[in-house]
Order: sequence, then C-alpha cells, then structure tokens
Amino acid sequence: MPTLDICFSPDLIPLYNLEGKVVVIVDILRATSTIVTALGEGISHVFPVATLEECAALGGQQGCLTAAERDGLPAPGFDLGNSPFGFLGEGRPLAGRPLAISTTNGTLALQRSLAAEHVVIGAFLNLGAVAAFARQQQQDVLVVCAGWKGKFCLEDTVFGGALAARLQGEFDVSSSDATLAALHLWQQAGLEGLAAYLLQSAHVRRLNSLEASKDFDFCMQIDIYPQVLPRWQHDRLLCQHN
Amino acid sequence: MPTLDICFSPDLIPLYNLEGKVVVIVDILRATSTIVTALGEGISHVFPVATLEECAALGGQQGCLTAAERDGLPAPGFDLGNSPFGFLGEGRPLAGRPLAISTTNGTLALQRSLAAEHVVIGAFLNLGAVAAFARQQQQDVLVVCAGWKGKFCLEDTVFGGALAARLQGEFDVSSSDATLAALHLWQQAGLEGLAAYLLQSAHVRRLNSLEASKDFDFCMQIDIYPQVLPRWQHDRLLCQHN
Repeated sequence: MPTLDICFSPDLIPLYNLEGKVVVIVDILRATSTIVTALGEGISHVFPVATLEECAALGGQQGCLTAAERDGLPAPGFDLGNSPFGFLGEGRPLAGRPLAISTTNGTLALQRSLAAEHVVIGAFLNLGAVAAFARQQQQDVLVVCAGWKGKFCLEDTVFGGALAARLQGEFDVSSSDATLAALHLWQQAGLEGLAAYLLQSAHVRRLNSLEASKDFDFCMQIDIYPQVLPRWQHDRLLCQHN
Repeated sequence: MPTLDICFSPDLIPLYNLEGKVVVIVDILRATSTIVTALGEGISHVFPVATLEECAALGGQQGCLTAAERDGLPAPGFDLGNSPFGFLGEGRPLAGRPLAISTTNGTLALQRSLAAEHVVIGAFLNLGAVAAFARQQQQDVLVVCAGWKGKFCLEDTVFGGALAARLQGEFDVSSSDATLAALHLWQQAGLEGLAAYLLQSAHVRRLNSLEASKDFDFCMQIDIYPQVLPRWQHDRLLCQHN
C-alpha cells in the first residue's frame, strides 16, 4: 500500500526522498487556490515565479496575463493581484491565455520538489482531483506545505489531513507522525466547520481586510473544481482534466 | 504578554530569533526524559554529546558515568544505555557523579539553540518545573522539538501542547499556528489518555521491544520530577531546583 506523508515546510524538503513520488504542493492562502481557480476558469497554463521581475518579463515575452502582489496587496503594473476573484465573474477574457503568477512560498516549495515523478497543485477547491490522481498513480504521495516564510501553517496542514482522510484505507496514513497529526487536526476542523476552525490561524488573522476575508471564504470551499488538476510539465503548470 | 511558540524540527531553528528567549529542548523518547531522571536521582551535572567518541572521552577525562546507545540498543563499552531505568532502583552510586550522554537529535537541537538567553530541558516528567521557570522569567518561550532525524514527531509536539495548556492565560498561545496545532493535539490526547494517544506514533511503534515499552510508559508520566529543571550553564546541564 503506498504511503501518504506530509512535509510541513519547504525548508524540510531535503529530508525526503522524492524519487518516484507524487508531490502535492499546497499553499491554500492563496497561491494554489488561485492557480486552481485560474485553470478552472479557462487560463491555458500557468508559470509560477518567485519575483516580480520574472513575472513582468513573462508578461512581455509570452503575452501572459500577470498576477503579482507584495505583502497581500496587488503590485502596481500587473494585470491582477493574487486573489482567485481576479479570475471569476463576467467579461474576463481569460480563455486560452497563459498566466504568470508571482508567489514566494509556493514557488519555493515547487522548485524544491522537481525531483519528484509528478508534481501537482492542491487546494480545498480541487481536493477530489488530487485524490483521484493519487489513486490512479498508486505511488507514494508527499504533501508539501508552502507554509508561511518556512514556518508551519495550519491551513496547509489541514489540507494534508483532508487528503489523508480521503485516501485512508487505500493509502498508509499512519506510518508518518506528520500525517497522523494532520488527520487529527482535519477531524477537529470537521467538528467546528472548516472555515470557523481555520479562522483562528495566525496567518488568517493577519489577512484582516474585507477583500482578504472574501478570498478566505472562497478558498475554504471543498471540491468546487473537482476535475481540475494543475500538473507540472517541463516549465509550466497545465491542467489535466480527469 | 510573552508568547509561546514551537519549532517542530532542529532544521527549522534558523527561522527563529532566539535572542532574549527561553528555549525548552524536548526529546521525550528518550533523551530529555532520561536527563531529567538522572538529575532527579542525584547525578550532579550532564554533558550531552553527539558522538560515542566524545562520550567515551568524557568518561576518561572527567570521571563521568557514560550513557550511550545506537539504534535503540546500549553501546558496548559504556556504563549505561539511554533508558531512564539506568538511573532508578537501589544500589546505584549516582550521587554527585557527572554524566556524559550521547544523543543525536537532542544534542543537535541543544547546540543550535545556544543563542537563547536560557536553555532548559523539558519532558512530561518535569512539565511543572518548566512551566514554573517560564512564569518566573516572563520572556518569550520557544519549545524546540528534537524530532526524529529532523522530521516532525508527535510526542515532542504534544509536550509543547501540554506546556501551552499550562501557560494559557499567562502566555500568548494563539499567535503561532504551531502552538495552536500542538494545543489541539494535546487536548485530543487528553480525551484518549496520553499513553494511549502516543502509542499510535510512528516513532513509538518502532520501539517495539519489552524494554522500550517500559521506557515509554515511564516517559508518559506527568510531573514525577516537578522540581527538576535541567538548565544549560556554560558547557553542561545543571539542575536548578525551583
């Protein structure tokens, strides 16, 4: 039976052997939730980048839409911020366009995970797509939490627990203490309701604007894009529709 | 109000500013439990070291009792293994003798924490002594989990949750996601009983000999040395009796 393990910080990735594994990158607030939304709403492919400069360059060179922000605010000179709402609503000419998105924690987690056999993007929004892909592959899975500046964060961990709960019985979810802990936190979140539980997270409480609160509520929805699996291919994330 | 934070791996210590902080090193199975027991039973001071060679050298040079093991078994040529039971029972000539103890994960965590203002040793066995020291100092506390080869481990984390529960109201235990998660896991352990809860830990299940199971039960006891606070001074751990 393949195992499901969870790495709580990009800084701990060197401890794991990624060879032959499926890595699931998760940065619930908001990079991976936004990428799932963008691909679910018609963006053709996504280049995640670490800096504003790379993001701007991809806008010029490849005709990408550009999404960037710093310290939670949209960065000047870019098409969009990092909110999933940038990709929702009427009149957005998204279909078939590529996107360059700047995200520090998420890009770092992704770049450090490229030794894995498959790298996919997870969020509550596409939990079912990630679980289905893991079942298909029948390989060990490592959930890599983007965290917050390298530190443990509750919402990414609870996503790991949600995935473990979905795969329990088909995957070994008890040989890693990290997975056990994440499962228990997910179960506790289930008793209180996911959004209510994660509202106490330190990271969430830092996002105290009205827009951030709207984004938070959106990102707490489970399986609104149950077919959307962003998957790393060569140099970009493409949507694999299951 | 001072804060209580938890660092889940020695590999994450560089992310924390230790200046002016109280660091609590925890390696429940078994280094810090054994150190608390040794000092509680009359050992004068403890030199934790990373290698068997350093341990043997301190035996020769400073007349230390030596405690060492590898892969969970006592190492040949040393006085004791790393079990707390080495320091318990009749007829042990411990009083006033120093101890050199070899422990990989615990020594690493300690060495990386020396920039802190105070470094103390925590275990369930002396939980009350650690809480009392934190209250006296009124400085920010960082619990550093020794973990298992750099990875998250459940028993060290649950100790962090137990300390947070003791200090709640006097310390800020909600501005770190790591502390929130540890508190929730401690509360869950409380419902099932600490030993029963931690028996599911991957690390615990690896310790499957009879001796290891005796050690495990011993290390799950709360506050049997409520006055014993091992504290780093210059080059050694001394017992500060509160």
